[in-house]
Amino acid sequence: MSTYKGFEPKWFQGEIPENSYRSVFKWGGATREIKAPKERMLQDVLRRFGMDESIFHEYQQDLGLDEVKFDIPITLEDRHIEAIKKIVGDEFVRSDDYARFSVAYGKTMYDIMRAREKIVENVPDIVVYPGSRKQIEAIVAYVSEHKIPLYVYGGGSSVTRGVECVKGGISLDMRLRFNRVVKFNEADQLITVEAGMSGPKLEEILQGAQSVFGARRAYTLGHFPQSFEHSSVGGWVVTHGSGQNSTYYGCIQDMVLGQAYATPRGVIETDQHPRKATGPDLDQVMMGSEGTFGVLTHVTLKFSRHMPETVKRFSYMFKDWKTGIAFAREVMQSEAGKPSVFRLSDPEETSIMLNMYGVMDSPLKHLFKLKSFKEDEMCLFLGFTNGEAGFSKNVAKNVAKAAQRFGALSMTGYVCKGWEHGRFSDPYLRDTLQDFGVLMDTMECCVNWSSMAKVHAAVREVVKARPGTICMTHMSHVYPQGGNLYWIFIIVENDAEAFRKFHASILDAIQRSGASMSHHHGIGKMFGPWLEGQLGRNEYAVIRALKDHFDPDNIMNPGGTLGLDTPEAEKRFLK
Amino acid sequence: MSTYKGFEPKWFQGEIPENSYRSVFKWGGATREIKAPKERMLQDVLRRFGMDESIFHEYQQDLGLDEVKFDIPITLEDRHIEAIKKIVGDEFVRSDDYARFSVAYGKTMYDIMRAREKIVENVPDIVVYPGSRKQIEAIVAYVSEHKIPLYVYGGGSSVTRGVECVKGGISLDMRLRFNRVVKFNEADQLITVEAGMSGPKLEEILQGAQSVFGARRAYTLGHFPQSFEHSSVGGWVVTHGSGQNSTYYGCIQDMVLGQAYATPRGVIETDQHPRKATGPDLDQVMMGSEGTFGVLTHVTLKFSRHMPETVKRFSYMFKDWKTGIAFAREVMQSEAGKPSVFRLSDPEETSIMLNMYGVMDSPLKHLFKLKSFKEDEMCLFLGFTNGEAGFSKNVAKNVAKAAQRFGALSMTGYVCKGWEHGRFSDPYLRDTLQDFGVLMDTMECCVNWSSMAKVHAAVREVVKARPGTICMTHMSHVYPQGGNLYWIFIIVENDAEAFRKFHASILDAIQRSGASMSHHHGIGKMFGPWLEGQLGRNEYAVIRALKDHFDPDNIMNPGGTLGLDTPEAEKRFLK
Repeated sequence: MSTYKGFEPKWFQGEIPENSYRSVFKWGGATREIKAPKERMLQDVLRRFGMDESIFHEYQQDLGLDEVKFDIPITLEDRHIEAIKKIVGDEFVRSDDYARFSVAYGKTMYDIMRAREKIVENVPDIVVYPGSRKQIEAIVAYVSEHKIPLYVYGGGSSVTRGVECVKGGISLDMRLRFNRVVKFNEADQLITVEAGMSGPKLEEILQGAQSVFGARRAYTLGHFPQSFEHSSVGGWVVTHGSGQNSTYYGCIQDMVLGQAYATPRGVIETDQHPRKATGPDLDQVMMGSEGTFGVLTHVTLKFSRHMPETVKRFSYMFKDWKTGIAFAREVMQSEAGKPSVFRLSDPEETSIMLNMYGVMDSPLKHLFKLKSFKEDEMCLFLGFTNGEAGFSKNVAKNVAKAAQRFGALSMTGYVCKGWEHGRFSDPYLRDTLQDFGVLMDTMECCVNWSSMAKVHAAVREVVKARPGTICMTHMSHVYPQGGNLYWIFIIVENDAEAFRKFHASILDAIQRSGASMSHHHGIGKMFGPWLEGQLGRNEYAVIRALKDHFDPDNIMNPGGTLGLDTPEAEKRFLK
Repeated sequence: MSTYKGFEPKWFQGEIPENSYRSVFKWGGATREIKAPKERMLQDVLRRFGMDESIFHEYQQDLGLDEVKFDIPITLEDRHIEAIKKIVGDEFVRSDDYARFSVAYGKTMYDIMRAREKIVENVPDIVVYPGSRKQIEAIVAYVSEHKIPLYVYGGGSSVTRGVECVKGGISLDMRLRFNRVVKFNEADQLITVEAGMSGPKLEEILQGAQSVFGARRAYTLGHFPQSFEHSSVGGWVVTHGSGQNSTYYGCIQDMVLGQAYATPRGVIETDQHPRKATGPDLDQVMMGSEGTFGVLTHVTLKFSRHMPETVKRFSYMFKDWKTGIAFAREVMQSEAGKPSVFRLSDPEETSIMLNMYGVMDSPLKHLFKLKSFKEDEMCLFLGFTNGEAGFSKNVAKNVAKAAQRFGALSMTGYVCKGWEHGRFSDPYLRDTLQDFGVLMDTMECCVNWSSMAKVHAAVREVVKARPGTICMTHMSHVYPQGGNLYWIFIIVENDAEAFRKFHASILDAIQRSGASMSHHHGIGKMFGPWLEGQLGRNEYAVIRALKDHFDPDNIMNPGGTLGLDTPEAEKRFLK
């Protein structure tokens, strides 16, 4: 923060009281760690907003330092609470305001705005901290018998209101006790863990496999979502998550090889054979069910060799978005092996990144001019490789060849390092900026190459129609058939409802454009009204049939998840 | 055939009458093309059986040259037949014996034995040759209304009794008219075809894309099952098929990106976004349903660049099975890129291949001795690569490195060429040998590395318990977590029922060993009784719930497919 030479806002750096709202909504948990934008970035944002420093003179939003307190009665009968206590032990059932609120919201901006405004809703009656698969199975059997709504809280990084306890009842907080390794199988490169295992802990265990398990090598899962620090294995699996290195390692769907669920219809446990032609793939039937079929308890994941020494980093600048897309398609279709991180920024994001990383103050600026690259047209690509040394080298070589073919300018490794440095910590910026009413949030969808430019333009048009909106887009998670478009938008807004409407207008635009409603964030309750409209009525009826099979009483994550009990009038059919 | 120096059996080479049983069951369709074993192979087989030439003095089985004739009344009411004729046109509905029989059986040995014995059962009342998706949708709507059983016949290569019309009714023969390209999308590398499209025709179209569609390049699907000549796209998809190059190109599950089905509950059509987090993956829910949910009409497939010039071929000999497995695991886990064909033979198969390809008469024989490799222990590996030149080269280099590490002897490209030459034509041998009562059939299952040796031994023990049985095993379709074990067994047997019992005992052994019941042949009606036992009761109930949703009247491929209407008493629970 000491890098500021001019005006520096008073970033909130105070103590965060233990039982405060901020301790819940803050990225990074109840620690004091914060991240503030660099002066360059702040000035750039102001310039784009057409605003001056004055917006940063005073906090515009409640800092959320008050103690969590609300008056929502517990309607779950005592006898049920006692029964649950018998299953897990008295000390692992809580009903105080803080515990109830701490599992109510995820991390989408709408959640955080409500938390700042002390709008508390959709809290569970009790929070339960299960310690074993058997306990969870017993709880599911009990709530099934008594028709009590059941929710699950994993890492808390949902950006779709996935965890919200709309119908009250019980929330299982998996973080505390349900986070162990069940089995490590080096020969098959498979690890089985409890669903509450956190992303960072699992990665630490795999990278340390030699000392933890006496393994012959170090391993990695290769799954690094931006929400890494707040993510859990169970959350990844039930929402179809993807990490930033997914172009090489695959999305979570590609990593799962075995799951166990406790459902109202009993335990479902899939086998761990690498492939099978034994009817519809049950792993795929269960993944993406977002807690509506049952509670995910155990997950078996494929892991890979940890070989940081083979990583190649590169970045290139392309003349414009169209050329960048053509390059991306060539790389993904060339069959030279896939890069790991693969990120192509559109002109607006490129411009912001160049300012943020100080590139526009470097000699590279002159090179852009020489090449006739314009700041409002050029597109930045950055990527990493993974894999065995020769493989990794060949991928990087092929990327370089394609970049040259499409007239790109090779950038320094500087840009990659800048991005890598912030890859998990950028979300911290949200809290710091939001204190002054500046919101950052994200949306994403998946598109084929042939509709990439069209979808980008259509969604951007809707976002930019709001005055003073920064809309950064990048393509990441890429395939031979297309990729994910990811939007980061920055606006000035202090009203939660107004924000929700803006958010909905973007979802409308995504559906209208014909893209998928989500590539890896899932659907949750926030996107639920759009799902049937995207999939089609007969297609959606398949998901409903599965729901009716597993959970005929609608007690598993009820209240809008996947749109399963969303009133017809609220559903969006815009295609 | 003129290569024989000693005794040569009189391989059947006569005219095959147009309406004969043989014209139906013969591999390669109603052509005269045959394939006879080389003298070396024949002598080797006899030696292993402990038999002499006399078995080949006379035909032991009916040659199947009689006209197909049977007396199974048509029970479908005339009004229904008229209604169907109205949908497709009079000339595209047939009810003669030949047409009915021609879609009744697939290509498993039990089918062929019944055909030779003129055991005709499970024929449809009428055969319909649909010409469009709309016609199929109209037929499905009609049979749903009137509860008429509906079957589908694609390429006819089923080895699981998948196509058999156990409940009579209607069989849709897709070959004649429902085999066109619907859409070719070069930018997204996607092609949409009608489900009756044959494997070889699709590959021809893709490789000829430049002249067929004016494309910029030639492409390939990379899907080459041994049944290639008899296979259809629809069959691949509904049974979860795999081709011999699947280790690089993936199984059909990895290639499908969009399907349309006509089901009793209406049309199901999935989107073509490369990835999505929009609830359970509907493509995966529908694939593997083997016609029990509805009729697959359109399939959209990802294709790849056709680059035959980059292919590398290699083969190595390993000391023993255990060493070969360890090598295979190393190659698949090393992340240097995956080979395309990947085939490791066990000692018995190795020994037969060496004799078949004449290796034991070559100087290589002495090298084996030098290395102390024993003929009843050593294991042959052969592989190909695909992909961009540098990628392909790196894969081959890495395979060579691993082979060296595991003490392998590099063999000449001779072995690969021999295998490649016979890769689609080996099934022709079955007919030629079977005329003399010598049966060849196959089984397969999928296993993890850690249980590979155990499953191999357990299944082999059961097969070899039958006196005079040749049991060749190879590992193919390989993954970082394990692979497919594929058994080819050769026995002398002339009774269909006796054969069926032997076949069932192998399925029992597979289930007992804990492997998957199938890696890529599917389940059909023949393996149906084992499916619930493998998946587990709750898990199997998920497939049944989907069945009840799509087809509550059980008219889609009824009579044992996936075990969905198999009587409880016939089911096998051996795990």
